[in-house]
Amino acid sequence: MEINIRRAVKEDCPRLLELIKELALYEKAPDEVTVTLEHFEESGFGKNPVWWGFVAASPNPSKGGEEEIHGFALYYIRYSTWKGRRMYLEDIIVTEQMRGKKLGKLLFDRLIEEAKEKKFTGIVWQVLEWNEPAINFYKKYNASFDPEWINCSISV
Amino acid sequence: MEINIRRAVKEDCPRLLELIKELALYEKAPDEVTVTLEHFEESGFGKNPVWWGFVAASPNPSKGGEEEIHGFALYYIRYSTWKGRRMYLEDIIVTEQMRGKKLGKLLFDRLIEEAKEKKFTGIVWQVLEWNEPAINFYKKYNASFDPEWINCSISV
Repeated sequence: MEINIRRAVKEDCPRLLELIKELALYEKAPDEVTVTLEHFEESGFGKNPVWWGFVAASPNPSKGGEEEIHGFALYYIRYSTWKGRRMYLEDIIVTEQMRGKKLGKLLFDRLIEEAKEKKFTGIVWQVLEWNEPAINFYKKYNASFDPEWINCSISV
Repeated sequence: MEINIRRAVKEDCPRLLELIKELALYEKAPDEVTVTLEHFEESGFGKNPVWWGFVAASPNPSKGGEEEIHGFALYYIRYSTWKGRRMYLEDIIVTEQMRGKKLGKLLFDRLIEEAKEKKFTGIVWQVLEWNEPAINFYKKYNASFDPEWINCSISV
């Protein structure tokens, strides 16, 4: 199967938002997705983009070769006062029916390439403590795991 | 005592880096600070700033009223695919001898004001699970605490 990894463009946003909601459901927080399509597009492709992404896609022969997006990865630039500019991997997701076909690996490898190109000092992200398949995937990259920090938030 | 909260400027960077190292020591990770002054300045005040900050300062009468910086808060813009643009509070620190004088509160209130002005949907940050004084401080703001996520990272 032919899989293409390419940079996300504005036209991908509706599909990406679908996948974001699929991931939130898996993470048991479907109601937490309150971002709108308009805000999502503007934040990625407006005057001052704050996120960047890659999609994993393939042509669908039963739809005349029309491209289908099966997964994506989205990052923003984190500024660490310890390590400088780092890639913060906000989401990486592959649809359920396409798991086990190395799409996650292709996306993650592309992220590493991008992090090197942009001279980030590393990639950081978070994983839910019970998400074993994801943890096992990240272990292949010799990721460090640090459970000592608690996430805090307030709305304003 | 007169405390001024003002926006951080490039000239503050050497002092801010001192405070960052003080905080890292308190967080038991002094060797983790590998960012250079040059990179730190460039990231905050170069062509494409990726962080913004506020300092808490007061005039020192024994030094002819020269301004002294006792604390600061530094944030960057986080892009949440659930909540949109949020303020990520990377560091908030007050020097040991100035604790208990409400500098932390003044800085945090200023951050909330900034978050509202910039139309962020909220403020997010992390706290070490054993850092009780900080946790108690954040509780005053009715912060949500979510310990279910594990921090992951790789260097590239």
